[in-house]
Order: sequence, then structure tokens, then C-alpha cells
Amino acid sequence: MTLSQAILNGERLALARLLTQVENDTPQGRAALIELFPHTGKAHLVGVTGSPGAGKSSLVNQLALQYRKSQEKRVAIIAVDPSSPFTGGAVLGDRVRMRDLFGDPNIFIRSMASRGSLGGLAQTTANLVQVFDAAGFDVVIVETVGAGQSEVDIVRLAHTTVVVEAPGLGDDIQALKAGIMEIADVLVVNKADRPGVENTEKALKSMLELSRPTTKRTLKHHGTEMTVFAPQEKAEDGVWTPPIQRTIAFDGTGVPELLEAIERHADYLRQSGGWQRRERARLDVELQTLIRAELLTRFREALSAQAYEKALEDVVERKMSPWQAAQTLLKEGAR
Amino acid sequence: MTLSQAILNGERLALARLLTQVENDTPQGRAALIELFPHTGKAHLVGVTGSPGAGKSSLVNQLALQYRKSQEKRVAIIAVDPSSPFTGGAVLGDRVRMRDLFGDPNIFIRSMASRGSLGGLAQTTANLVQVFDAAGFDVVIVETVGAGQSEVDIVRLAHTTVVVEAPGLGDDIQALKAGIMEIADVLVVNKADRPGVENTEKALKSMLELSRPTTKRTLKHHGTEMTVFAPQEKAEDGVWTPPIQRTIAFDGTGVPELLEAIERHADYLRQSGGWQRRERARLDVELQTLIRAELLTRFREALSAQAYEKALEDVVERKMSPWQAAQTLLKEGAR
Repeated sequence: MTLSQAILNGERLALARLLTQVENDTPQGRAALIELFPHTGKAHLVGVTGSPGAGKSSLVNQLALQYRKSQEKRVAIIAVDPSSPFTGGAVLGDRVRMRDLFGDPNIFIRSMASRGSLGGLAQTTANLVQVFDAAGFDVVIVETVGAGQSEVDIVRLAHTTVVVEAPGLGDDIQALKAGIMEIADVLVVNKADRPGVENTEKALKSMLELSRPTTKRTLKHHGTEMTVFAPQEKAEDGVWTPPIQRTIAFDGTGVPELLEAIERHADYLRQSGGWQRRERARLDVELQTLIRAELLTRFREALSAQAYEKALEDVVERKMSPWQAAQTLLKEGAR
Repeated sequence: MTLSQAILNGERLALARLLTQVENDTPQGRAALIELFPHTGKAHLVGVTGSPGAGKSSLVNQLALQYRKSQEKRVAIIAVDPSSPFTGGAVLGDRVRMRDLFGDPNIFIRSMASRGSLGGLAQTTANLVQVFDAAGFDVVIVETVGAGQSEVDIVRLAHTTVVVEAPGLGDDIQALKAGIMEIADVLVVNKADRPGVENTEKALKSMLELSRPTTKRTLKHHGTEMTVFAPQEKAEDGVWTPPIQRTIAFDGTGVPELLEAIERHADYLRQSGGWQRRERARLDVELQTLIRAELLTRFREALSAQAYEKALEDVVERKMSPWQAAQTLLKEGAR
């Protein structure tokens, strides 16, 4: 039996093994992704992000427990740690998190370090999501820390994006929120038993209003237009006003209501056609990323190492600009 | 007179104009970058990053003032805001920051939104750095918010990386710090008048020890090995133990000592050969990024829009996996 068949049969050990293969981008992992892909497209993908210190991990744990309790859904959690791009080690290990949810075969948690670079993290996350989706998990939660471009790339995967904040998180959190606000579907004020919760909620409300532009925009990068979940895409989906939910992850207060809000958003997407639109945009980004990576690999295989080193040397010595060197190498590679 | 000649002559208005051209990746901007490149390689590139709320912007302002006061150096600041990947608007505008430093023609501040994606931000920042370098700025400070992969990509530009923390920044700041610690050359505990400064310093020290692996590693992404400022590169440079400096950006306490630490690191790099190694690694990453972008542009020009749409449709309908679709399209594009 192949690894992908074992996964379709619900074997947990095979699942763990394939996740590692996929994370390491092995030939076996790639082959399994092709076999599993026809079985994807069913899971509800939920992205959870927000400021550091907002208590996202605890909230995600509680949310998973609530999915089990109220709906008996199978839940996978992918925790993306920006902890170590170089060592590849996850600081918040699987074991610590598993303690809460241990023993339930219908919850699966995977921690991932922010290894690789240049779009690699988002691609790996997308692949892990596909494995969980094919393995029959009803909900796949992707949790990221922070709110930079890489987080935006990752939450772009989601049908529903949940942004978590908490009272009293320092003075330039405000600046961080604007970008992520534009892709928020559900807002959470966690640690709602702390002082300042009204102020945080008020701040979120005004950030939300500020961050919903009405003009149409496209992202451009070196002449390439990128398909993204931009605000206008949401406008096409109809009118969805992101609700703000207070929670206390520590004792579970507000978590059932948060789950309801997430489910309402899924229903709304299904009814408005937004579900299909997001699915398509997500796969579009994925296809473009794969093409880009493959083009570079082929190019490097066609080019001699000496030619590259020679061009780099010319750049270091300022005989050519990087752009000129790139053009020269592309000419050689095309021969 | 061309724009680049005006910049080499030190014309401030031309500089501002070219920065905009470069940010928007216009043909004029590209042409100027080629003309200016032979004049680069002199500036000391200083990356400043760290947790949100650590007070990086105020500290960078103070640092720029100190450079003027003690060394009469010309200083450029590039502030990279992750505020809005979609609207392209910088929340912390130029004007607010300029107020402190207004009137000094030897300080130039540029705010940049985290627009674009997939390596685009790091590339644009690299181009802006080149313009300032050619324009004769002695020091170029690149300030980023957060500590995700995109920040790591950006600070990879720097000769000297300064990581700023402050007491009491929430509970999962710890996780954020590990990745950035590995590339830190100088550590700062800002807001050192606040309670908890000893604990923050102690935490930084132990994070520092944890994050300096002794084994050699390379980054791999889809079969492509990336050249990065990995810890082993630092080991090659000799022994540099990142000092920890306390500061109070509000009143400038500790800023002269911070500047001295940064200068000591620059001297150390020059003596150990690390300066050249980092320069080369930086240009290597830049060259690879340019090749990658250009390959995609050429591929898309060669391919019909219908062929791409058809392949995407097959993926959406689960007839082909994204990887299979990419292979199919690459075959068509190569014809």
C-alpha cells in the first residue's frame, strides 16, 4: 500500500510520515501530493494570526477542543513558528502543545519552523494543508505569529482569516495591524479579562474602518500581476462585516461564540460564491509559485557553475550591476 | 544632465525623485541603478529590527542624530513598514519622523510600505540602499518591524544587524527572538528605565547562547541552495560576541555607546575579511532574486493567457495537481 493510500485510509502514523516528507520536499512527498490532490477541496481552511503576545496558540487549542465538543469535526492545526529560519528548529515544540489535546485521534497538531525563504514557507504550508485536507480533516487551522508579508502570504491560504489581539500589547502594534486588517474576516480580543479591553476593541473597530479601501487595486511585482485576496475580492463576495469577539483562551470564555462566527463566515462564503473565488485565487498563487521555483531550478541546471561565479565576481568588483549580470546569465542559459 | 548624474552631484530633489522611480520599478529607475552601481560599495549598511513596541523608530532617529554629532557622517534611513501590503500606504509617514531631524541636509529618511510580495520587498530595499550608497551616504540604516522571514530577508542586506528589545513586551516574544538572534551583531535593551530591564537582558543573553549553533547548515528551497548570512559565516569571520547595550531612546541615554558598538563591529568586519564575505553573499542573493523574477516574466510572455487559464481551471476542478499543471505549462512555454 502506498503512503497516500494509507493516508486516505486514515492511518495516523502514515500521515505523520508524509508530513515530514512534504516538509522536506522529497520525491516521495511530491509524488504523494499528486496522488492526494484529487481528494482535496473539502476542508475549511482557517488562518489565525495577530500580534505576538495575543495568546494565539492557547486560543487555537481551545478552538480545536470546541470543534470536537460541539460538532465532532476532525481538526488539524499547523503552527508556523518564525522562530528559526536558519536552524529549522521550532521553539514551541509539538510536545508542549500536544499535552492539552493528547489522546484525541481526531486532532492533529504540526509545528513548522519558518525555514527556507522567498515564498518557500507559504508553499510548504500549502502542501501540508493539502495533505490534511485529503486525509479527511474537516477543519485545518493555520496559525502564524506576527503580521509581516510572510504571514500575509500564509493567511492568503485561508477561507476564513481570524485576527487575534489583546489589551496592552505595546505602542506600535497599531502599525502592524493595518495590513492584516484588510484580510481579517473575524476579529478576536483575547485576554478579555485584562484592563483596557474596551480600548483594544475600539482601536480594532477604527483600524477596520480605515483598512477597507473602496478602490480596486492589483499587486505588481517586476511586471507580474499577482492574484491576491484583496479587499475588492471581498466586496465581490457581498457584504461581510467582520465581527469582533471577546475571548479568554485560558478558561475558554467566548470560544463557542468564536466558533459560531467562523462557521457563519463559511456559510456566507458558500452562499455568496466567495468560497470558489478564494479557492481559485489560492490555487492560482500556488501554481505561479511552483512555476517560478521550477524555472529557477531548470535555469541553474542549464548554466555552468563557473559562469555564475564569474558573473557574481564581476558584480562584486562593480564591473557589472546585478541586473546586467542577470541579463548576461539569462542569455547564456538560453543558449 | 541625467538623474543619476544629479544624484552623484548630491542633489536632494533628484534623489527623492529617483527613490520613487526605483520603488515603482520604472525603466528610468532601472537604468539609473545600472549607472549608479559602480559608485556603490562604500556605505556601512546597518539593519535594525526587533519586537514591535521596542521603540525602534525613536532609537533609529537618535542614532542618526548621534552619527551627525560625533562623526559628521551622512545618514540615510529606510523605514520598512509592514503596515499595509495591499494599500501600499505607510502608516508611520515620512512627515512625522522628519520632524525630529528636519533641516539637516545630511540626513535622509524614506518610509516604504511592505508592498509587493514573494521577495519583492527585499529586492526593492536592496535597490534603495544602492541609491543611497551611490549618493554618498556613509551610513544606510534599514529599519524593519517584526521578526518574520521577510525581516530576515531584509536584514540580510546589512553589514551590521542591530536587534532591539524592551522590557515587558508580552509572553510569546521569546519565540520571535530565536530566529533573529542568529543574525544579531549588536543587541539593545531599549526603554531601559522601565522595570524588568534585568530580566530582558538575561533573556537576551540566554537566547543568544541558544541560537548560536555550531554545526554547518545550508538553506535549501526546491533544490536551490541559498547563500545566506548563516551562523557559520559569522564563525568564519572570527569571534564576535554580540554586546548588549541599554538605551533610553526618549532622552538619548546609551545612544553614543550604541554607536560605538556598531562602529566596533564594522572595524571587526573589515579586519576579519567579513565585510567582503557579507558583501558577496548579499550580491549573490540579489543576483538570484533578479534572475528568478526575470525568468517568470519571460515565461509569462511566451505563454498564452488561455493556456494558463486552462491549466488553472484543471487544477480548480482537481483534474491536475498544481505541480502537474506547472509541468504542463513549462513544457508549452519551452516550445
